Amino acid sequence: MPVISHRGAVMPPSPIRKLVPFAEAAKKRGTKVYHLNIGQPDIETPKAILDAVKHADIKVLEYSHSAGMESYRKKLVEYYKRNDIAVNQNQIIVTTGGSEAIAFAIMSCMDPGDELIIPEPFYANYNGFSTSAGVKVVPIPSSIENGFALPSIDAFEKAVTERTKAIMICNPNNPTGYLYSAEELDVLKEICLKHDLFLFSDEAYREFCYDGKKHISALSLPGLEQHAILLDTISKRYSACGGRIGAFVTRNQQVLDAAMKFAQARLSPPTFAQILGEAAVDLPADYFDEVHAEYTARRDLLVKRLQAMEGVTCPLPGGAFYAMAQLPVADSEKFCQWLLEEFSYNGATVMMAPAAGFYATGGRGKNEVRLAYVLNENDINAAMDCLEAALKVYKN
Amino acid sequence: MPVISHRGAVMPPSPIRKLVPFAEAAKKRGTKVYHLNIGQPDIETPKAILDAVKHADIKVLEYSHSAGMESYRKKLVEYYKRNDIAVNQNQIIVTTGGSEAIAFAIMSCMDPGDELIIPEPFYANYNGFSTSAGVKVVPIPSSIENGFALPSIDAFEKAVTERTKAIMICNPNNPTGYLYSAEELDVLKEICLKHDLFLFSDEAYREFCYDGKKHISALSLPGLEQHAILLDTISKRYSACGGRIGAFVTRNQQVLDAAMKFAQARLSPPTFAQILGEAAVDLPADYFDEVHAEYTARRDLLVKRLQAMEGVTCPLPGGAFYAMAQLPVADSEKFCQWLLEEFSYNGATVMMAPAAGFYATGGRGKNEVRLAYVLNENDINAAMDCLEAALKVYKN
Repeated sequence: MPVISHRGAVMPPSPIRKLVPFAEAAKKRGTKVYHLNIGQPDIETPKAILDAVKHADIKVLEYSHSAGMESYRKKLVEYYKRNDIAVNQNQIIVTTGGSEAIAFAIMSCMDPGDELIIPEPFYANYNGFSTSAGVKVVPIPSSIENGFALPSIDAFEKAVTERTKAIMICNPNNPTGYLYSAEELDVLKEICLKHDLFLFSDEAYREFCYDGKKHISALSLPGLEQHAILLDTISKRYSACGGRIGAFVTRNQQVLDAAMKFAQARLSPPTFAQILGEAAVDLPADYFDEVHAEYTARRDLLVKRLQAMEGVTCPLPGGAFYAMAQLPVADSEKFCQWLLEEFSYNGATVMMAPAAGFYATGGRGKNEVRLAYVLNENDINAAMDCLEAALKVYKN
Repeated sequence: MPVISHRGAVMPPSPIRKLVPFAEAAKKRGTKVYHLNIGQPDIETPKAILDAVKHADIKVLEYSHSAGMESYRKKLVEYYKRNDIAVNQNQIIVTTGGSEAIAFAIMSCMDPGDELIIPEPFYANYNGFSTSAGVKVVPIPSSIENGFALPSIDAFEKAVTERTKAIMICNPNNPTGYLYSAEELDVLKEICLKHDLFLFSDEAYREFCYDGKKHISALSLPGLEQHAILLDTISKRYSACGGRIGAFVTRNQQVLDAAMKFAQARLSPPTFAQILGEAAVDLPADYFDEVHAEYTARRDLLVKRLQAMEGVTCPLPGGAFYAMAQLPVADSEKFCQWLLEEFSYNGATVMMAPAAGFYATGGRGKNEVRLAYVLNENDINAAMDCLEAALKVYKN
């Protein structure tokens, strides 16, 4: 029998999916499961953009341009301009989800053995795309004690080697919800310029910033024009995860030329969701106001509930729709499995993402979980009732 | 300025796109361009499957399962059964186009430095996905003299080394249109079993077989169950290239497990086109009859016209919708560029794909072109009028 690749063997499985069979078994037993484990919003996709797909007059469902439909890229120029990001349509490659933008960045800029510095905890699939490209992830720790702020410039300096080619950030951050400040972005700029590193900036959650804080894009940092690569997606912005449309944006022409070759190899991004994405740029300006108010209320409720539980630490996240919490348990993976396998409260239980899967350093995050506040307030309250009761039982 | 990766630098550009600027310039001058250069069919996408997307009742455009929607995978089981391929829904991973199925096969089964044997000429993007994965393509020659039949078992034996992990075929073939016989597939089976190699079988054009010949899937070869991986797509079958839906199908559980990890990293294939693909399985059985009759007529016309031109060789292809032709020119790339830059006949010219881009061996195929018969008979006649006139002018 032929053997699979080493790459296939060491490729990390999704840390979230390990618990899926236990959740399915719980549902079979009739237990309701509140899903705070994944970033799949329950917010309805705007009808206007779904209608754009319904009303599209397609005779032949053709390949689009490998960089994406020109009409869509022109619309995206408008969208980015509104967000203080000045780019033209030739600096945008429409991708199949943010996932493909991540893959294009790693493959265009990095070779096997090259090192990618990422503050941990981080979005687990950065590790997956790095592994598949033979790239080594070098984590540097951020900590729940200061709300997962950017590590110090010293921590970056210590991590830089001859093989370092790039730094990856997610801003606002998944899984921590941390929103980087202007000062922190200046630290990143300084270290990137000093060592000539690319800055991969995943800004999937750009619109989700709270408490009047403003998002600053890596593409808006003067002096970093040749180093910054924006990785983007419409998935969270418009509750359109299944569309699979994202964007790879940079002003570095060499990087664009390389990325275009990877884009051409896979022919084109999906047409239907490009139509959806194009319509989304024309959504009324107040679309995000309502979404924003909803997520703010959810965040406030979730964090308040968590902070009220004995032994639980949960910093207030400034952005995205995730919160990280430290629980009074030794092993959050075992606890999350126990919640699904053995516990229920009022006929329900809660599913969370054990945080160890977001750390590359073994042993870190073992008593932390990530909670995605993608459910309505009633459900969040019910889920927190479960968690509160569960922690009392689990301790004993 | 930071430098791009070696991988990004050596990644081959699309051989077809080099000519695109010349085609655009021709159109600007008012010259009509007959596009025989790419496999983008002009056949209308069946209205019933486009309507399935229009009528889909989507409230939240969610991620689907990473292996694809269960309802779609169940439908695909029916589709494959009708095509004498017995698989279950857990042996199918729905992919983002056939492109992603190719990438999953290479990454799941092969490591950097491993060798992939491919009869040449071959679909150029096999080279792209191999390059991005650090895999070495080892071409073995097929030849226009015998219509691009499978190379001999000796040619395969000579090419096998310690690093050989797989053989890739496209059946029916793009770019040659060759349909492999039962005997040829037995040769492949023998060599794969002897050296324990995977057989990657791209069967994108399964339905396009002519002259009463029957397609045999690699997944139907008894004894090859653990070695065969089917790479599939709905793009050509239903004229749905822009949907970006394909499939990765194998009975090898280890390979499935590895491929699922790559599938999870990119979250899910696009939802809209999965709905389209699911509806396509229920198209009436006579759908392909009409398409088939249309392509047969086009093929017969194209090949007859080519064979009637002085100095042109064009074997009759048994499948797909491509023909390879040898032209009485020294360098078909220069000729194709000249057709777009300098030539017109009745206000029109023709765009073809220079065949050198389908060969990995330098110098091979220099006087060959690939023609995709994706235009109606009137347009094919007009395009052949151009080519015939052009060859007369070009010689002098």
